[in-house]
Amino acid sequence: MYNAPTSDMLFVMKHLAGLDEIAALPGYEDATPETVRAVLEESAKLCGEVLAPLNVEGDRNPSRWDNGKVSATPGFAEAFRQFVAGGWQGVKHPHEYAGQGLPKLVATPCVEMLNASNLSFALCPLLTDGAIEALLTAGTEEQKQRYVPRLISGDWTGTMNLTEPQAGSDLAAVRTRAEPQGDGTDGTYRLFGTKIFITWGEHDMAENIVHLVLARTPDAPAGVKGISLFIVPKFLVNDDGSLGARNDVHCVSIEHKLGIKASPTAVLQFGDHGGAIGQLIGEENRGLEYMFIMMNAARFAVGMQGVAVSDRAYQKAVAYAKERVQSRPVDGSSREAVTIIHHPDVRRMLSTMRALTEASRALAYVAAAQSDLAHGHPDAAVRAQHEARYEYLVPIVKGWSTELSVEVASLGIQVHGGMGFIEETGAAQFYRDARILPIYEGTTAIQANDLIGRKTLRDGGAAAKALMADVALTVAALGEQDGTPFKSMQKHLAAGQQALASVVDYVLANVKRDPNAVFAGSVPYLLLAGIVLGGWQMARAMLASARLKPQDPAFHGAKIATAQFYAEHVLPQAVALEAAIVSAKGDEGVLALSADQF
Amino acid sequence: MYNAPTSDMLFVMKHLAGLDEIAALPGYEDATPETVRAVLEESAKLCGEVLAPLNVEGDRNPSRWDNGKVSATPGFAEAFRQFVAGGWQGVKHPHEYAGQGLPKLVATPCVEMLNASNLSFALCPLLTDGAIEALLTAGTEEQKQRYVPRLISGDWTGTMNLTEPQAGSDLAAVRTRAEPQGDGTDGTYRLFGTKIFITWGEHDMAENIVHLVLARTPDAPAGVKGISLFIVPKFLVNDDGSLGARNDVHCVSIEHKLGIKASPTAVLQFGDHGGAIGQLIGEENRGLEYMFIMMNAARFAVGMQGVAVSDRAYQKAVAYAKERVQSRPVDGSSREAVTIIHHPDVRRMLSTMRALTEASRALAYVAAAQSDLAHGHPDAAVRAQHEARYEYLVPIVKGWSTELSVEVASLGIQVHGGMGFIEETGAAQFYRDARILPIYEGTTAIQANDLIGRKTLRDGGAAAKALMADVALTVAALGEQDGTPFKSMQKHLAAGQQALASVVDYVLANVKRDPNAVFAGSVPYLLLAGIVLGGWQMARAMLASARLKPQDPAFHGAKIATAQFYAEHVLPQAVALEAAIVSAKGDEGVLALSADQF
Repeated sequence: MYNAPTSDMLFVMKHLAGLDEIAALPGYEDATPETVRAVLEESAKLCGEVLAPLNVEGDRNPSRWDNGKVSATPGFAEAFRQFVAGGWQGVKHPHEYAGQGLPKLVATPCVEMLNASNLSFALCPLLTDGAIEALLTAGTEEQKQRYVPRLISGDWTGTMNLTEPQAGSDLAAVRTRAEPQGDGTDGTYRLFGTKIFITWGEHDMAENIVHLVLARTPDAPAGVKGISLFIVPKFLVNDDGSLGARNDVHCVSIEHKLGIKASPTAVLQFGDHGGAIGQLIGEENRGLEYMFIMMNAARFAVGMQGVAVSDRAYQKAVAYAKERVQSRPVDGSSREAVTIIHHPDVRRMLSTMRALTEASRALAYVAAAQSDLAHGHPDAAVRAQHEARYEYLVPIVKGWSTELSVEVASLGIQVHGGMGFIEETGAAQFYRDARILPIYEGTTAIQANDLIGRKTLRDGGAAAKALMADVALTVAALGEQDGTPFKSMQKHLAAGQQALASVVDYVLANVKRDPNAVFAGSVPYLLLAGIVLGGWQMARAMLASARLKPQDPAFHGAKIATAQFYAEHVLPQAVALEAAIVSAKGDEGVLALSADQF
Repeated sequence: MYNAPTSDMLFVMKHLAGLDEIAALPGYEDATPETVRAVLEESAKLCGEVLAPLNVEGDRNPSRWDNGKVSATPGFAEAFRQFVAGGWQGVKHPHEYAGQGLPKLVATPCVEMLNASNLSFALCPLLTDGAIEALLTAGTEEQKQRYVPRLISGDWTGTMNLTEPQAGSDLAAVRTRAEPQGDGTDGTYRLFGTKIFITWGEHDMAENIVHLVLARTPDAPAGVKGISLFIVPKFLVNDDGSLGARNDVHCVSIEHKLGIKASPTAVLQFGDHGGAIGQLIGEENRGLEYMFIMMNAARFAVGMQGVAVSDRAYQKAVAYAKERVQSRPVDGSSREAVTIIHHPDVRRMLSTMRALTEASRALAYVAAAQSDLAHGHPDAAVRAQHEARYEYLVPIVKGWSTELSVEVASLGIQVHGGMGFIEETGAAQFYRDARILPIYEGTTAIQANDLIGRKTLRDGGAAAKALMADVALTVAALGEQDGTPFKSMQKHLAAGQQALASVVDYVLANVKRDPNAVFAGSVPYLLLAGIVLGGWQMARAMLASARLKPQDPAFHGAKIATAQFYAEHVLPQAVALEAAIVSAKGDEGVLALSADQF
């Protein structure tokens, strides 16, 4: 069972992310309130009715490898046909390539629903989106015309081929070779190498698979500056768009994983039979740069996977807590055993799951709106401002939301008690599935390096400080409200904001002098930023709900109470993280032990 | 690979838990330093060489049910023979029933090793220990003589049968019936009912299984005051100790679980063919009381499982981090990629795993010593004092260590990056296995209820306050040391101690007036107590290491650095938890939402 939380989604879109402003941007005129609501409702229907029921099936009956061919879980191919037939692969892609041209803010709840209903399934469209982004970013017009509409129609799907056994987080170590074809006339290359961890790298849901592959040309410089990006389709594509010969890329195995079992994770062998034919995308040696554009989109999408799994785990735990009868209430209000949702600790767990889910959702949607403004605003200076904010938020959305999803899924098991540990119950699948999210598309440490290196230092902390100034405005606005929830949020958000400010100053002041100490605090900094900026959205939500409460007292009352819970249970962690970060001195604490002492 | 951390174990036993004092108690004279070291070394050998290699095998090839019979993982039965032949089932049990009569403090590292090497396997001796405890507590001399030596020899194993489908945390709901036999001459009963979640409830590693079963006699009062405890052997035992007829208790299925897969979790059906023959233990209607004595021992043991899994996950992560080469160091100290243990965030993760493991180990061993003093001290008043401290610590050891183990195992996966998500790597097994620990033998919420109800309120906070006075002495002793690590610990431990003191006051003052609010903070209170009391042990360790450093600078330097890390990264969470606890007001925050609003 999955019921898309469309009320909360629309609330966040309208009152926190500024849907009206986005819809007013040139090109996004279609995003009227009616259209947006209709899109969300249709998406909710497909996800709830078609994809969600296949989620457990995918876990029990994963994709299978047999002699180079991979069969998806029964039912997946048919569901994929429905998904692409509904136009869902193209929601945010341009009209000119058969997409729907809607803003990222509108595509984001659809992505959330897709992932909440079926994480393994959702990875196929997610990777295809990545391939589309890369082609739109760096492809020639011919490449775009040839590939993008077929990827949006779902005739073909896409993959990203980065990792090699010796090159995980460190893409400088990529070894796959790309040799220009002998005659040099058609601009094609022959690729040789092994790629691992290729999500949906082989399957039977589409007639072709378009692999985007990082490789080195013969004279490329060492390291990340010598990596180029290639299109290597499973079947070569003729000039008329029809499929030609089978290319020399083969799936030699798929992994046996902790979770997301329906999603085949392929080892792909390129060039064992003479070379896989590939075409360069963009310029030689700029592959990593293109990949980063596409990775930013993919990282945001993985952050949404975190929100999605959290919400699904929350929904399941709530349903169980409303149904399972066990023990009398501690306050003596009943002599009979009650449903466990009446027990204070179950309430605490559910409130934690709910608050973390709502905060991470709100922060991600607000980031999506920044991306729309960065692309669509008529004023270049305003675009740049929003771009900087979006860039700052992406590693936080990716790192924080996914770390939370592990915690939330774990709480989901705990709410179920012993039943949670039994696989048939289904709560354990979320705990297993979620565990990949803080790892792939860049581990939390990689996100945190990005947050420090590219997103904080490069602009001297300008984006971070602009955000904190806005948080301070919200703190002030809270002061104008009466009542404990608002006072409590004001106090804890102000303390969180100060903690974040002090950490940003610490990072800026010390990173050159003592990089080890600063980077030892990188993940705590990312989590602290997530907690405070997520808290900021909860505070903004409670201010909006204070205004809107008469329209729907139950909904807005719950928003205010959940925000208060977040203020008192989550925001205080910010100060604890600050202590951990600023106390890390180069030769003490975290770095004091030699490797041998571990 | 598992290397028992005997150096740290001996350090904790000697310098924190007071091994000398324990060995001086009457009856524990055998626990000389030489014997203790030899016991630990022998245990380490068996666990490292025999049991640890079977751990992965148990995960891949779990116990199997076939027509009522359960086969253990291949290799387990032979390993079990070696385990019992070495006398390991009897380490802490009395000489008079063929045990070794060693203190709990000495048995505890053996239990840790056993669980670290193979959690699923270890559950069989753990449950047998529980059955032995119950028999020793409430059995007749004849029952003790008949069952205990055979349980210690491993001819037979034991189980605890509490849970029923409608009676999980709430044993008041137990429905299994026990009817006195018609003639009333032999004092036996016939039992009818279904028990679920029975660990090692059926298997082929021993010739008999002694089930201890909670059931109701015909005229028993409702609720927990009408539950009696019965011995129901799988095969009836003749007066000469030989096995008689097969009893009417049958395993109708075993569960398909997230982890501890080698350990069969049985559904047992009693009395489908006329009634399972059982013998009452102790007095009628006092079953829960006996069960609680045995559960306290089992809860402590499950806390040790938490420590054990944490340590195993830590060892695996360290080994990988020392071997995996990826990326250049952030401080520019090498132009080549280095092993990942040189990266600050990997260091932070390993330090977190290490600090949490050491702290939870130290607290548990200190608690074990309290139990020895409570049993063995010649002075009744001193015994009572130590008993109160042990009782206070048990729910913390159980709840906190197991919650930590989930976090530590999750970090263990993260250290491995993408490889951590691949089942063959083995890190994921710890993450799956650990997840049951905060659930069985009483969920963390049940431990927290116990901590508030029986352990804090009942003595008006006396045990809690006595502990805090001792923590304050350590804070003062830290002040007499020079150097940042000591100053840092002093500051954070003092703040933690104050947070815990304020929470204890809050609990005492408000639980009657507003039980919902106080119990909403019960788990945060338990975790806060664990963090502070674990930090107290880290502080005591660093003081001991300051004194002992010249003897072994690498070992003691690591203790001091790890304690500092704990002070700066873990202890600050205490203050955050305090905020969450004392802010929970009955009609706000955690309890503000109606069930419908979830």
